[in-house]
Amino acid sequence: MGQGVEWALHSCVNMSWTPVGEAVSSVRLAAFYKLPAAYLNKQLQALVRAGILASVSGPRGGFQLARRADRISVLDVVLAIEGKDDAFRCGGILKDAPDGAMEADYARSCLISQTMRHAEVTWRTELSRQTIAGIAQSIERRFPDAREETVRQLTGVRGRQEARTI
Amino acid sequence: MGQGVEWALHSCVNMSWTPVGEAVSSVRLAAFYKLPAAYLNKQLQALVRAGILASVSGPRGGFQLARRADRISVLDVVLAIEGKDDAFRCGGILKDAPDGAMEADYARSCLISQTMRHAEVTWRTELSRQTIAGIAQSIERRFPDAREETVRQLTGVRGRQEARTI
Repeated sequence: MGQGVEWALHSCVNMSWTPVGEAVSSVRLAAFYKLPAAYLNKQLQALVRAGILASVSGPRGGFQLARRADRISVLDVVLAIEGKDDAFRCGGILKDAPDGAMEADYARSCLISQTMRHAEVTWRTELSRQTIAGIAQSIERRFPDAREETVRQLTGVRGRQEARTI
Repeated sequence: MGQGVEWALHSCVNMSWTPVGEAVSSVRLAAFYKLPAAYLNKQLQALVRAGILASVSGPRGGFQLARRADRISVLDVVLAIEGKDDAFRCGGILKDAPDGAMEADYARSCLISQTMRHAEVTWRTELSRQTIAGIAQSIERRFPDAREETVRQLTGVRGRQEARTI
């Protein structure tokens, strides 16, 4: 699994905190973690194609969540970045075994393939139960300043504390 | 995940059927599925390094299971071929966030990393519960001739049916 999954998940959590209707540029999203903006932009475009993000053009353009964060699962993000194929891809080598049948669908009937598929399903089920909103809420509970600080950095809006000192 | 996992799992099941103490050459194991012998040999060597197979040198040399098939899990084989790293590798990008701490172990503390880790554990647990012996027995129940036919092909010993016709 590439680094893009980590970048995409963190960026989605961060975007779940920014005001609705306010897009964030890939440059700002990348700068937050000192990531290469061009490569992060590719991951964000993949999230757009998967319907997880919406891209907004224009001078105040950028990216924003395309739907509520409690309707975006971690699995949605992982599959958008990594593709929808299972980690284990049955090559159907039983076709070439002495008793193999060319017309058989060994991805379905082979017991090794079934075992790997079953494990993949448990993994996907686990990730489908976790949402971007759920992770964001857990972070807020543990790090009460995280949300405000992130919004301040991503949108350029001063946090309350900083505003008071001026 | 590479094709090596599929090849290795099938080869382990096949070796669970061959007589104890009788090694099978990588050429025969590869020929069974018309696989490239040199590349299969690399996978088999990885299984030897992991203590799953034992290699036997000499004219009747080759590979055999290094322990009972009910003590070799599917996870053992997968990790031997693919390496022991999690599919998701936390790059710790929170270190570079505005409030990031260089000394923090974000692979442990980051909630995104924890979510991915938890899913990995469910996947590994599932695969650790399945053994080569369990798969072999399921195949035997469903395809009663599979074991005998495989042994015949891999060891050159004629099956009962073929012997009768001579």
